[in-house]
Amino acid sequence: MQRRRDRHVAQLVECVPNFSEGRRRPVIDALAGAVEQTPGVRLLDVQADESHNRCVISFIGDLDGVARAALAAARRAVDLIDMNVHAGEHPRLGAVDVIPLVPIAGVSMEACITAARALGAALWQELRIPVFFYAEAATRAQRRRLPDIRKGEYEGLPARLADPDWVPDVGEPTPHPTAGVTVVGARRMLIAYNVNLRTGDVDIAKRIAKAVRESSGGLPAVQAMGVRSTAGQAQVSMNLLDYTTTPVHRAYEAVQAEAARHGVEILESEVVGLIPLDAVAEAARVFLRLRSFDRQQILEAKLMEE
Amino acid sequence: MQRRRDRHVAQLVECVPNFSEGRRRPVIDALAGAVEQTPGVRLLDVQADESHNRCVISFIGDLDGVARAALAAARRAVDLIDMNVHAGEHPRLGAVDVIPLVPIAGVSMEACITAARALGAALWQELRIPVFFYAEAATRAQRRRLPDIRKGEYEGLPARLADPDWVPDVGEPTPHPTAGVTVVGARRMLIAYNVNLRTGDVDIAKRIAKAVRESSGGLPAVQAMGVRSTAGQAQVSMNLLDYTTTPVHRAYEAVQAEAARHGVEILESEVVGLIPLDAVAEAARVFLRLRSFDRQQILEAKLMEE
Repeated sequence: MQRRRDRHVAQLVECVPNFSEGRRRPVIDALAGAVEQTPGVRLLDVQADESHNRCVISFIGDLDGVARAALAAARRAVDLIDMNVHAGEHPRLGAVDVIPLVPIAGVSMEACITAARALGAALWQELRIPVFFYAEAATRAQRRRLPDIRKGEYEGLPARLADPDWVPDVGEPTPHPTAGVTVVGARRMLIAYNVNLRTGDVDIAKRIAKAVRESSGGLPAVQAMGVRSTAGQAQVSMNLLDYTTTPVHRAYEAVQAEAARHGVEILESEVVGLIPLDAVAEAARVFLRLRSFDRQQILEAKLMEE
Repeated sequence: MQRRRDRHVAQLVECVPNFSEGRRRPVIDALAGAVEQTPGVRLLDVQADESHNRCVISFIGDLDGVARAALAAARRAVDLIDMNVHAGEHPRLGAVDVIPLVPIAGVSMEACITAARALGAALWQELRIPVFFYAEAATRAQRRRLPDIRKGEYEGLPARLADPDWVPDVGEPTPHPTAGVTVVGARRMLIAYNVNLRTGDVDIAKRIAKAVRESSGGLPAVQAMGVRSTAGQAQVSMNLLDYTTTPVHRAYEAVQAEAARHGVEILESEVVGLIPLDAVAEAARVFLRLRSFDRQQILEAKLMEE
């Protein structure tokens, strides 16, 4: 039937660029508008944080579409953002701080890496912004993680780029005079997942975070920190960088087990932003001990994919 | 953007007619073919059971489309099935035994009831099959449940229809000479959910089923029976008739609690056929203690609905 073909999702990539502007609404709107006006792309979400002075724009489309939309928004960002007068809580290197490409459906990580490299080349050629590649698109091990790349921040860029270890992947080793540097890469979809504890003792959350995060010997592909939630509870705030390696239920159960050592229970957990259907289905599958549960048994998934 | 409107799911109804043929493949193919050839309808699944001598055809579309497809398949069933030579394990009243309409998206139960009544009228007008309305479309309380309507089966129809309590909702009180009677209705999506126990003692499964099913004072909107699974385990086989009343996790936990009284654990559970996304998300939400989890946070759901 023709209808089936029409519904087929050919190639779907999520792009989640972070820009160094979280306060001036007209600037944020201009960035989002540049995305929205790009054919073949759909704007999903715009999140601005005033204290971070940073916004995150989420959109989807095919590889070609999201790359064009990211470039269009970057053009506006270079026009409207001057890093020399930027201040905010969140570490950053440039006006277009980071552009991750995330394969969702019908596209390989390899293809996203290739597209990220091409997008980086275009940022230099058209806008004269030097580019680092990160995550799956990194050209060397020490450029995989954003915290490593961001050391010294925008203000430290002239010294950083002069270091032979930190020559940009694309462009000359001098930051753009107002837009700094951009980090471009490809990564799996990340799940921002917080677990709130039945205690206000943030120190316990910090100890649990240390126990569960990969960097201190915990769960693979998990970043974690202990913070206070807006409601005042101790919170273990995590990024699940690869939910096929460490699924949501395993992060939950690891926090639960560590919390028990401190005599503390889990109050609740929360997903911040988007979560893939497969990650939700996997949690249901594990807790219900479902035998041979197939994503195609979910009515809406079946409707969408054929 | 125009694309958003194209993706909007306007009106989606599932139709799951049961026909009294589970052995003759050409007949089953003819019934499924009648559905597949109806514009605006998409065939999802065809399940035939030889011992039941019965097949279940699942398809979706808008109300108008699924009604036309059901009528087209009924036409073929009247041509090809003679109830006077039909035998099978499953209770049945007619060649087109039952036609349920199930609202999925963008359509009310009320609209499905209206469509079921119109479909019943068409079955009589065109094919001279008397019709009972059941479930949400029932015209009186004793016609809500299929087991009540099916008492006496096809062979008992002449006597049944002569009973003033069992005058058909549409048509004359005489069964169609070869196709009997059809039951048409509207109901919520049903989840077929089985829990396998770590025991081969079917008697325990039967006692658990009795404790959890609505008809003997258990969970609302749950039908349950104890049987032996194909792998030889004791199995509590359930229909969750309204997962918004009794969700999957509550059925699981009720079986778990009852099993514990017999010193038995749950081995695994299984969903037979389709399950709505909301039911899967609810199970994940409950087990992960997710705070304010919104279906729109599931990437694929967000992509589908806008």
